[in-house]
Amino acid sequence: MKSELDALMAKRGLDALIIWIDEIYSPPLDYLTNGAHITQGLLVKKQGAAPILYVSPMETEEAAKSGLEVNAYHNAELYEFYKTLPISKAHAARWVQILAACGIESGTVGVYGTGDFAYIIGRISELREAQPNINFMGEPDMSRGLFKEAYETKDADELMRMKSVAARTDQALEATWNYIAAHHVEDGRVVDDAGSPLTIGDVKRFVRRTLLDYDLEDTGMIFAQGRDAGFPHSRGEADTELKPGQSIVFDLFPQEIGGGYFHDVTRTWSLGYATPEVEEAYRQVMEAYDLSVEMVRAGMPAKDVQIAVMDYFEANGHATLRSHPGTQEGYVHSLGHGLGLNIHEAPGMSHVSPDTLRTGNVISIEPGLYYPDKGFGVRVEDTCYIGEDGQAAPLTGFRKDLVLPLKG
Amino acid sequence: MKSELDALMAKRGLDALIIWIDEIYSPPLDYLTNGAHITQGLLVKKQGAAPILYVSPMETEEAAKSGLEVNAYHNAELYEFYKTLPISKAHAARWVQILAACGIESGTVGVYGTGDFAYIIGRISELREAQPNINFMGEPDMSRGLFKEAYETKDADELMRMKSVAARTDQALEATWNYIAAHHVEDGRVVDDAGSPLTIGDVKRFVRRTLLDYDLEDTGMIFAQGRDAGFPHSRGEADTELKPGQSIVFDLFPQEIGGGYFHDVTRTWSLGYATPEVEEAYRQVMEAYDLSVEMVRAGMPAKDVQIAVMDYFEANGHATLRSHPGTQEGYVHSLGHGLGLNIHEAPGMSHVSPDTLRTGNVISIEPGLYYPDKGFGVRVEDTCYIGEDGQAAPLTGFRKDLVLPLKG
Repeated sequence: MKSELDALMAKRGLDALIIWIDEIYSPPLDYLTNGAHITQGLLVKKQGAAPILYVSPMETEEAAKSGLEVNAYHNAELYEFYKTLPISKAHAARWVQILAACGIESGTVGVYGTGDFAYIIGRISELREAQPNINFMGEPDMSRGLFKEAYETKDADELMRMKSVAARTDQALEATWNYIAAHHVEDGRVVDDAGSPLTIGDVKRFVRRTLLDYDLEDTGMIFAQGRDAGFPHSRGEADTELKPGQSIVFDLFPQEIGGGYFHDVTRTWSLGYATPEVEEAYRQVMEAYDLSVEMVRAGMPAKDVQIAVMDYFEANGHATLRSHPGTQEGYVHSLGHGLGLNIHEAPGMSHVSPDTLRTGNVISIEPGLYYPDKGFGVRVEDTCYIGEDGQAAPLTGFRKDLVLPLKG
Repeated sequence: MKSELDALMAKRGLDALIIWIDEIYSPPLDYLTNGAHITQGLLVKKQGAAPILYVSPMETEEAAKSGLEVNAYHNAELYEFYKTLPISKAHAARWVQILAACGIESGTVGVYGTGDFAYIIGRISELREAQPNINFMGEPDMSRGLFKEAYETKDADELMRMKSVAARTDQALEATWNYIAAHHVEDGRVVDDAGSPLTIGDVKRFVRRTLLDYDLEDTGMIFAQGRDAGFPHSRGEADTELKPGQSIVFDLFPQEIGGGYFHDVTRTWSLGYATPEVEEAYRQVMEAYDLSVEMVRAGMPAKDVQIAVMDYFEANGHATLRSHPGTQEGYVHSLGHGLGLNIHEAPGMSHVSPDTLRTGNVISIEPGLYYPDKGFGVRVEDTCYIGEDGQAAPLTGFRKDLVLPLKG
């Protein structure tokens, strides 16, 4: 939680943290600035103090929406640096000056933000050279970064926003279901009243527009049919025509417009009817889903739930990543993951995850079975919250019907 | 251009480059993989050779769309590392193993990609420890990164895509103009036929939906009225009602859906009529725009165009970043910037830019005047291509009328 930030800094021996502000969406920046749209500058947070922003004079108004102290960095001084130093070193000198203005001239400073790797690797070298008394550091343990740890449990405000995203995603799913259900089958193809075939491109366009009606945006949905549905990350080809009786994996992970909280939900639909093979796989995936949601308890190792699902699938004759590492058939991925301002956060729910489930987690639970060579895949996913009672409660409310009936 | 990559690597002494693949959109990855949607893994490109992908077994199908050699990294081996090493070191060991499989066991390797800064700073330390014979490096000069240099000139394929994005953006602008023009004034407010006031939120929602119709997506448009328009990066408040006779800065920079090429265009609109003050500012901005487009020649220092615009504005009594560094009134930003897979690329067009204009550049030209305390701002921007004749040709085609007439 946000309230733990100082403790998380202390744990890492950080006297301060900085967020290097670049023009791409940055979850840690959003986390600390209420989503103010700032595209260049520096955020400085000292241990025990509120963050301070240094931004371009053009962005002071936007930055003020953060509610934080905002300073314009002065181009005049920057241009002085430019006169005597190459551009990269001038920027490093400017940041060192800003840190000094914040009273940071030595100690350990964590560097955060989101952007171009080559750029930050180069800049860190220059910062270290420009201010050798500060130890500029990244995250030593990739599974347990400072923000990752903070994100891992949501506070009441965050939960409220995520519940709203969930409810709006439900409505987009309902609209999509109804849109497809208004089609019928003609010569083995799914067509509209005018006889035009419905394609994956049509459905995705409909979904994207519908999400906008709810102030959400698509971030790369999967809508994959048949063999494509057998590959968990195949997104589906726009010109593929929908066919009755094929499994469709529809994985939707929209985000608040302009960056913000995610929701993550998957439904498997089969238009008109389902084959016995897909029905049986679906029944097993639903059993795995149900046993997972029932089993979750705060305080439990996250991997235990995945191990129970692997036990179940293996007992039913499916390969898993445990029985057949690297398998592309059977149950080929983790059970789920935390989510929030990032689509993938802690806790991880692989069978080797070191994480513990906790009250305040928002996690996806998404068992699936994949048989590309048999031409199908099945996945069912809800986003769930682990509440004060320590149990998982789905935030996703949309129904879990396999067969989506068509007109006529 | 893409064809220069090996030369750009040689210039930096790189024996190879790697792109660390993370789940956020990565322009360099898109550049080398034809926009294949890969969210984890490693791209390795040796000097003189085509890139090779190492991805999760779940993503081999998506990765194949790149047309590159695709390898699944084997989880079995990864799990062996996990047994003996902490997770971060296991990953570093795995990447070192992949590099060795590519024949890279020493030399200099450039590290690229887009994502979490704290993560990559930590990972680089581990890679250097795991394979001390390789010099892993970022970009020493922030203004001239390898990909930045490659992006700076577009090849025929890229130009074709950017022309298509431009034409589709024009259509979205036309639709937006018509949408607003269908409103009328009642009691000093801009309202629809039912008498409901039109808000910035309504317009933005319309624009976002319209862009989707053209397979484009909004990346944070500015639609700011009156005083807000006086701050170049104020995006406009959703609940602000549109009013006649106020300048509206509408800066639209959509991108191909799911990541890809950008377009960048700004129009200043005043609904129904314009005040003499805004009209005069608009006339001057248009003069600055025209002189810029006419002046551009391949081979010229980019800063010369900005300097000419500053000369013009200063002669007309406006402050500029040269006459008044850090000013928030007058002409407060650069003339433009390159764009492509990134909204901001080289060449930069500030008055201290070290860049030279070249055939193949795609640049924005966007002079503006800002007077927040007088309640207005004006900016006009086209995206232009510098062709074989060395001159700037606008890709943006939409008309540059200041006054948008309302109904009745």
